[in-house]
Parts: sequence; C-alpha cells; structure tokens
Amino acid sequence: MADLLVVGSVALDSVTTPFGQAIEVLGGSATYFSYAASFFTEVKLVAVVGEDFPKPHLMTLKDGGVDLSGLQVTRGQTFRWVGEYGFDLNEARTVDTRLNVFADFRPSLSAAHRKVPFLFLANIDPELQLEVLRQAERPQLVALDTMNFWIEGKRQALLKVLAEVDVLLINDSETRQLAREPNLIKAARAILALGPRTVVVKRGEYGALMVSDGSFFFVPAYPMESVLDPTGAGDTFAGGFMGYLAREGRTDPESVRRAIVFGAVMASFTVEDFSLNRLLTLKADEIERRYASFQDLVRFEI
Amino acid sequence: MADLLVVGSVALDSVTTPFGQAIEVLGGSATYFSYAASFFTEVKLVAVVGEDFPKPHLMTLKDGGVDLSGLQVTRGQTFRWVGEYGFDLNEARTVDTRLNVFADFRPSLSAAHRKVPFLFLANIDPELQLEVLRQAERPQLVALDTMNFWIEGKRQALLKVLAEVDVLLINDSETRQLAREPNLIKAARAILALGPRTVVVKRGEYGALMVSDGSFFFVPAYPMESVLDPTGAGDTFAGGFMGYLAREGRTDPESVRRAIVFGAVMASFTVEDFSLNRLLTLKADEIERRYASFQDLVRFEI
Repeated sequence: MADLLVVGSVALDSVTTPFGQAIEVLGGSATYFSYAASFFTEVKLVAVVGEDFPKPHLMTLKDGGVDLSGLQVTRGQTFRWVGEYGFDLNEARTVDTRLNVFADFRPSLSAAHRKVPFLFLANIDPELQLEVLRQAERPQLVALDTMNFWIEGKRQALLKVLAEVDVLLINDSETRQLAREPNLIKAARAILALGPRTVVVKRGEYGALMVSDGSFFFVPAYPMESVLDPTGAGDTFAGGFMGYLAREGRTDPESVRRAIVFGAVMASFTVEDFSLNRLLTLKADEIERRYASFQDLVRFEI
Repeated sequence: MADLLVVGSVALDSVTTPFGQAIEVLGGSATYFSYAASFFTEVKLVAVVGEDFPKPHLMTLKDGGVDLSGLQVTRGQTFRWVGEYGFDLNEARTVDTRLNVFADFRPSLSAAHRKVPFLFLANIDPELQLEVLRQAERPQLVALDTMNFWIEGKRQALLKVLAEVDVLLINDSETRQLAREPNLIKAARAILALGPRTVVVKRGEYGALMVSDGSFFFVPAYPMESVLDPTGAGDTFAGGFMGYLAREGRTDPESVRRAIVFGAVMASFTVEDFSLNRLLTLKADEIERRYASFQDLVRFEI
C-alpha cells in the first residue's frame, strides 16, 4: 500500500438540482477526491480554507482517514461555489464563484509530502500544478484533471504540465477542446502525443473511456434510477482511480483497468445524494458489491 | 440455424453528412437489416418497391443471400428518403420523405414465411406490424423497432403490438418518450411492464443498454476515428442481433448478450461508409475480429 497526495480545492458548495437543494455544504475537488480515495489508502490533502471553515467538516475528513497536515487555514473566507443543474445532469451552470482564500493559494509540500509516490493534481491553475510537480520527488504516478477555463486561459502552462504527467483525467467536451479536434478518439490520441501515456475521458452518464498507447478500455456509468446531485462525480471517480492504484502500488495496464472501474463505482455512489452524504455512510462491502455489478454489466462470452 | 424474416422498408436514400454525399443509394430499414443479418443466417425480406427500383440493387441483396420472394414490385415509385447530418451524427434531419408505393404497403406472408421462427418488425406503422404478427405462426422470438412518429401518432396500436413482442429495440430519446419518464432506467423498466421481456436501448455513439427482468447489459460503441454516415446503424444493429440469435436458434440470456455485441459490431462497420458500401466488402473474419475487440474493450479482472 502506497501513499497518495492530492492538491486541489476545499470548498463550501451551494447546489440546486431538480431534486433538491443543499446550501453551504462540504465540497471541493480535493475534498471529494480524498474522501473517496480514503476507502483505499492513506491520503494526504494539500489545500487551503478560511477561518470560517466549519470544524465538523475537518472532523469528517479526519474520521474518514484523510491526513490534513497539508491543509492551510488562513485569514479570510473559504472558497465558495454556487451552481445549479437542469434535468440534463451532465452539465452544471455556475451561478457564482468566490475564490476567497483560494485566490492566493500557493501549495507548498512538506518534506514528507514531497516523497509521496502517487500524486493527483486536481483541477486548479496549471501554473500551480506545475509548482507542485516541481516539488515532488520522482513520484511513481502523476495524474491531472483540468477544465475548459484553463484550456482557454492558460493553454501554454497546461501544455507544460501535461508534458510531465502520466495520466490525464478529463471530460469529453474538454478533450475535444484541448486537442482542437471534434472526433473524440482522434482528440484523445492527439493528447497522448502531448505527454500523458493514458487519457481517461469522463463522459458523465455515458461512462468513461480510456485511451492509451494502442489500447482502449470502456466502462459504462452504473445504471441509476435516481441521481440527486452529480457534483463531485468526476473528483470521486479520480479518487477511486488513484486510491486503488496507490493501494495496490501498481500502474500496469490491468491495474489501470480495475482502477477505472473503481473510479466509476465511487462516482456512482456520490451522485446518489448531495455533497459527500452518500460517501459518509458507505461501507467497504458495498464498494466490492458494486464493483462486481460492473463486471456483470459488461460481461459476455467469446 | 433457424430462419429469420424481416418486414420493413426498402428505399432509395439521398444523404448528406459533413464528410460527403450519396444520392439515390440503396437504403431502407429492411435492406440494412437483412443484409447485415445475412452474414449469420438465411433472411427473408418482406417489403415493397416500385418499378423504378434498380435491378443491380436486387442483385446486391440476392448475392448477399437475402431471400427476396417476399419483395413486392408494384407500379409506381420506390420509397425515397432525403436526410442530412451535422457534426453531431447522432441525429438525422429529414429533408424530404416520399412514401410512394410504401404508402399502400400491406405485408402479406406466404405459407412458408408464416412459419419462420425469428421475426423482426422493422420501423413501420404499428398497425402493419400487428397485421404481420397475426399472420405469423407462433414464432420463437419477435423483435420490434419503432420511432417517435408512431409513438406520437399511433400510440394505441403501438401499445397493442408491444404487448405481444419479446424484444423492443429503440433509441434513448424514444425510450423516454414512450414511457413518458425522463430517467432512462425507469423508462426502460416501465416498457418491460408493457409486454417485452427485453428492451435494448440504442444510444448511437454511446453504445447500447439492455434492460431485462432483473438484469442489465451494456455494450459501448466501437471507438471510431472516422464515421462517414450513420444511416442504417440502428437497422444493422438489429440485423446483427437477430441474425446471431437465429443462427444459434437460441434466446437465452447469455446468447442475447452476445447478440447485442454482434449488433454493435455490425453497426460499427455500417457507419464507416455511405449506404451499404462497407457491408458489401465485409468478410466473416472481420466480424469475428471486431467481436474480439469488443471483448478487449470492456474486460477487466475481478
């Protein structure tokens, strides 16, 4: 079992979906990622919150087994995101974003953190992602997430960090945008040429597609009769993915396939409720059972 | 190996996609279906064409092994469809439809045809589908396709025929429309309550999902770097599906899973070129190789 470190955001989210509303609840990419990954391995979280950040949320993460020694608490307000979804739950509409203390976030890894073998650079400014990467000491595997905002606004910095990571996790429209290519398969292949040896395209309710040198792997989304809130699905996908690889301490192709399925498993639980609520009650045997369901969902005989 | 019969349309299509154009080429649901299914078993085609229908097209179907004894040639013009696709190849825009001789089509099965064990009712007026079903003598498996036009305009007739078929093949928006339910899984389950014991939801570039009593099965679309024309993909999917089941003479759950994969295999070839062009050069070993690729696309170890 190897350690895992994530650098990203910890936020207070206010989310409205057709099925309900949650105000100022625990959110953020590093939060979802670390809590999901903590089901698999020891996770170290590097992020920043303001003095207003509720103590119970810290306890929630600690109780989940997340190492908070890298969490800075600084003067000011915690990052806030306000978003809403229509019946097409694949796309969030951002109503308001207040970076607050996150605007001046400069991640700094402690001596112990620099040696962590599995590193996830969640969706933050690619210049910060690069700074973190410079501090890490030859990690075994580095994965990165990004979004349209950085693809448009910080393309050069993003290309620079991409050249040095092993895995890119990205959604489908951003795959096309980054590669400037409408065909998803061509786009993913074009991104492989930029550096990563593996691209995992997250397609929301349509599952995820991995494109790697000479090979494809597809996992469907779990068939759900009820999705309350898709917020955090992508980050928990990444958490299950990296958490599994870190637990196994492996990065071979067969392990990567299983890791992608564990990503889909964790995402399928997250969307069953608002915030991290479903994950808070999740048991290890539920994860194993749903993993087996995924096997049943796609198996057929030659 | 059991025989298979399809009732549907034979047409002359004019199609424009961002990648080219084809004018007055061989098309129609029964055409795509029967040609695809002919790779697996003996197929009998029941349809109508006008006197203008080009003889070489008849030879194409005959050479493919399609039994044309049920094809009526009547006075008048053959059914014509004119359609176009934008870069979102999932949805065709119909520019013009001329039913011509198809407007008065009344399918009549010969004595031999009535005994066929595998029956596919392609996308035609549900009242005609019901008439065909009444003529069939206890088939082993009946599958049906339909579309928004009939769901809106002939709902009662459609519900009547649905109550008597085994498998419904339908696209995702039509699944929601027929069940009047936005959640796809709930919608498919609701349709199971209307009669079919299996619903296969075709999702274009996102693959296909089977919902059956207590079980799900998912097959992705084959990752394609180039799709020239999606016309006929759904019908060749159905052709691969029914063709395989008829060849095996089986309808058990494991065979149905394999049949769905063969459906996806055949559809993946069809979209590589306009009209039936790609199918015309297709070899049996290419089908087997692509089937194996599908296995590799989704496999992972427990």
